[in-house]
Amino acid sequence: MYDVAIIGSGPAGISAAINLKVLGKNFIWLSSRAVSKKVGQAPLIKNYPGLPDVTGGELAWTFKNHIESMNIKIQEKVVTGVYDTGGKFTLLAGEEQFEAKTVILCTGVETVKSLEDEESFVGRGVSYCATCDGFLYRDKTVAVLCTDKKFEHEVEFLAELSKKTYVFPMYQGYEIKSPNAEIVLKNPVKVSGGLKLEKVHFKGGELDVDGLFILKGAISPSALVHGLETQGGRIAVKRDLSTNIAGIFAAGDCTGSPYQYAKAVGEGNVAAHSAVEYLSVNK
Amino acid sequence: MYDVAIIGSGPAGISAAINLKVLGKNFIWLSSRAVSKKVGQAPLIKNYPGLPDVTGGELAWTFKNHIESMNIKIQEKVVTGVYDTGGKFTLLAGEEQFEAKTVILCTGVETVKSLEDEESFVGRGVSYCATCDGFLYRDKTVAVLCTDKKFEHEVEFLAELSKKTYVFPMYQGYEIKSPNAEIVLKNPVKVSGGLKLEKVHFKGGELDVDGLFILKGAISPSALVHGLETQGGRIAVKRDLSTNIAGIFAAGDCTGSPYQYAKAVGEGNVAAHSAVEYLSVNK
Repeated sequence: MYDVAIIGSGPAGISAAINLKVLGKNFIWLSSRAVSKKVGQAPLIKNYPGLPDVTGGELAWTFKNHIESMNIKIQEKVVTGVYDTGGKFTLLAGEEQFEAKTVILCTGVETVKSLEDEESFVGRGVSYCATCDGFLYRDKTVAVLCTDKKFEHEVEFLAELSKKTYVFPMYQGYEIKSPNAEIVLKNPVKVSGGLKLEKVHFKGGELDVDGLFILKGAISPSALVHGLETQGGRIAVKRDLSTNIAGIFAAGDCTGSPYQYAKAVGEGNVAAHSAVEYLSVNK
Repeated sequence: MYDVAIIGSGPAGISAAINLKVLGKNFIWLSSRAVSKKVGQAPLIKNYPGLPDVTGGELAWTFKNHIESMNIKIQEKVVTGVYDTGGKFTLLAGEEQFEAKTVILCTGVETVKSLEDEESFVGRGVSYCATCDGFLYRDKTVAVLCTDKKFEHEVEFLAELSKKTYVFPMYQGYEIKSPNAEIVLKNPVKVSGGLKLEKVHFKGGELDVDGLFILKGAISPSALVHGLETQGGRIAVKRDLSTNIAGIFAAGDCTGSPYQYAKAVGEGNVAAHSAVEYLSVNK
């Protein structure tokens, strides 16, 4: 059991990890990437105090160097669910699970827009992890919204076990080989159904399916953590970065604007300190 | 008239200034020191992301370099009062005054403890500026609590015009020459009086005075800004770092713990963005 689990490797997650290391806590750090892709994309950053005129690439390198100098390790895993399991939290990542007393969400802002009604079908046909939930759809019909080449092995896995797999690739240069997979070059916009998911809708049509897998690096916070309070799609936090769920904290872009490196780094620092304070009170 | 006035030169003030410069705002930056003394005092900082293992001195130098590279100027002045003067704020600094549409308070945590009942006598005998209020005490008896050698010229000024000036020096190596100044080697702890100040109390005694001048770099926020809401001595702020007074924002240690560089830098960033948003709405 870890003291803290950090999810996400943007500036907020990096700052939280550095602080937990300094504070001597036993933590696990999970993210879909070693360092958030978005950090490296900024052309020129002028307002990160202490590092004038750095490119995003340089800042990413500098952060990575800082983490490595402290011997902090990140595990490249996509967390697909966080569950309150009585005085602790269980995090699902593929077929693995991890337990922690507190969680710091540094999941950034989704770059993949959620589908209409997506969240209301989570657990009733919508899933974010093929290896976790694929077995539920043996010999059934599924659709997969695949946002990145690196998830293609999950698509193949689903194509193997399902009766039929429709694939919506959201990127260029896809290579999906299974004869059981049918590529659909449309943008899904909505899901619908009754007690269970029945249809995936796109402009000009729809498909009847038993399940929809949405494979993306960042899952919307309220889909990731059941009951998490959000405001306008961002996690609602107090000044100490606690959320409405005791023991869960959030930092960085996922808590709202301004979407800035310094703001995220500051919040990672505060969230780490708040988690440590929470641990000292809730032994 | 400035768009923004920043008060204080710690990490929060530095971050706010850098952001206002990037955002193209017309601002004035006032502080009792070029770079906050406390920044340089930390022995080793491990948790400022991007700058692993820097000393406080190195971080102060790096911040100073960043500011200078952007051609940002700071004015070394002690602000002794911020007044709402109808749709704008007037800041008093010695005999000068400045006007700004918004104010960002980055005044840090007081290192000089307030005296008991000090704040209730502000404007009724307690003053923070000899050159501003000295004339009120011509041929009267005053006491001066002087916290730093650099304020000695204000002590001399008071000694010249008063009937009698008692001086409490709070540092080693004082050099106060006026024959009209009497050094008192005691620690004042309390003030008292009726409608106006009458006494300064210290352990084992008291002095009858007409006025008390407290000369220090950082004045408590609620003494600096009339009506500013505080909680446990720290400025009460919302998530966007606005205070209870529209147009006044706060960032850094003055808003409360954790007292951390990254937290202060993050808050300076957010406060600058919030001030700019406020300006765009309240034209």
